[in-house]
Amino acid sequence: MIWLNGAIISETEARIDPFDRGFTLGDGLFETARAYDGRPFRLEDHLARMQRAAEELEIPLPLDMPGVADAVGALLQANRLEGGDAAIRITLSRGSGPRGYNPPHDPKPTLLIAAAPYTPPVELCSAAFVEVRRNEGSPTSRMKTLGALDNVLATIEAEERGAEEAILCHNAGNVACSARANLFAVIAGRLVTPPVAEGVLPGIARRVVLEIAATLHLGAEERALLPDELRQAEEILLTNSLFEIRSVGRLDGGEIAGRALGARLRAEYRAMTRLG
Amino acid sequence: MIWLNGAIISETEARIDPFDRGFTLGDGLFETARAYDGRPFRLEDHLARMQRAAEELEIPLPLDMPGVADAVGALLQANRLEGGDAAIRITLSRGSGPRGYNPPHDPKPTLLIAAAPYTPPVELCSAAFVEVRRNEGSPTSRMKTLGALDNVLATIEAEERGAEEAILCHNAGNVACSARANLFAVIAGRLVTPPVAEGVLPGIARRVVLEIAATLHLGAEERALLPDELRQAEEILLTNSLFEIRSVGRLDGGEIAGRALGARLRAEYRAMTRLG
Repeated sequence: MIWLNGAIISETEARIDPFDRGFTLGDGLFETARAYDGRPFRLEDHLARMQRAAEELEIPLPLDMPGVADAVGALLQANRLEGGDAAIRITLSRGSGPRGYNPPHDPKPTLLIAAAPYTPPVELCSAAFVEVRRNEGSPTSRMKTLGALDNVLATIEAEERGAEEAILCHNAGNVACSARANLFAVIAGRLVTPPVAEGVLPGIARRVVLEIAATLHLGAEERALLPDELRQAEEILLTNSLFEIRSVGRLDGGEIAGRALGARLRAEYRAMTRLG
Repeated sequence: MIWLNGAIISETEARIDPFDRGFTLGDGLFETARAYDGRPFRLEDHLARMQRAAEELEIPLPLDMPGVADAVGALLQANRLEGGDAAIRITLSRGSGPRGYNPPHDPKPTLLIAAAPYTPPVELCSAAFVEVRRNEGSPTSRMKTLGALDNVLATIEAEERGAEEAILCHNAGNVACSARANLFAVIAGRLVTPPVAEGVLPGIARRVVLEIAATLHLGAEERALLPDELRQAEEILLTNSLFEIRSVGRLDGGEIAGRALGARLRAEYRAMTRLG
């Protein structure tokens, strides 16, 4: 079952209009959150991020944020996911419109929520730098937009290089993120992550990790990161709201040996998710 | 009426699956072509461009190119557009897939064709540089992908600056194109247009203009173009397959006085469309 514009219906019954600008122009946003034991984690942060981006894009929200949270809860129940781990996807588009880029003056946005059981991948992964660049000069690189084809291409490219995760630089050459996650390097024992201004999504898991680092006085810095610094990092971590924290064991075939800080952050992160 | 995956049906009857990757990830392509007196102009060039990009994205085509051309013809007839000018939009997505960026191994692409009567805007327009950058470091900037939100944002930004057309630079600072068109500057009497490598769509109307320029020995050069060169250009032309050639009369409020080359190219272009 999915939640579409106010109703919980079966997937086969659900219809997106062929002139929905989400389909025709990628004109919309999405959020991916995880539920633990049926409880969405940091849902309010996801919804606040969507709301901020929707304001910037001038897409009105068809529902207030508590309303969306209620819809998520109802959908988890309808899909019998109250007791388990689930991936929740919330999709917002500007809705249908006539041909052309100019938004309709009176948009009727589409809001779609889907939820499915979720099992995280193993904690250790391989990664590769890819050719596709992150567009640091567009505000959309700091939003989770429906135009995710660069991430798809990056993922295909990484797979062709025999790696699971794709590391993207921006046009000026600094490291930005992975195709599906934010990125942390451990350099001289300290966490380093590229700032959002480098064309990086302000990830919710990224924020949780920064909060944990602050609480534990681990020392974490948001600063520009060069590809060579990443290659020589003691440890590399990828973070997103679904798989939480993955450790990169190999980058472009070279070994990244460190695991300790990742393990510590992972334990703290998991404790938070189970607390609630 | 629209053409969807082999059938001509009414818009209200047509259904895009909520898990179509065109909707969820902008994972697909589109083409916009114009029909004159019911005859699509350079449709083979549009379809060849779509085919090249689809191969690069590893999206299989559900129909061969003559099949798509036949479908376009049938749709024009169904919409009683055989005798008039029409805008044709062909949309190809990778089809439905499970959550995540990895493409499904056995994609079932969605192919959608729409056609509507078309009336071009006036030939003269105003333009403004916008903040949004073109992503010169991604292959998708050289394709007409479903992820067009940067163009939507650029169009909104231009409108806020009181201009109709948005001029985009890439991250390294050169001029790339407008949100909905390719761009030519007339400098010292010669046509200059940014090369495709600068994050520019290889436009079909752009190619027609380059062909006309070659035939008439007008002198046309594909080279990097600086914003200041554009501001000081004698003439600025925007080209796309729908409105053909628009002359920019004002850029960021400053007058661009020249019209002669635009008028000459427009006459040649129109002669070709009525012949062809």
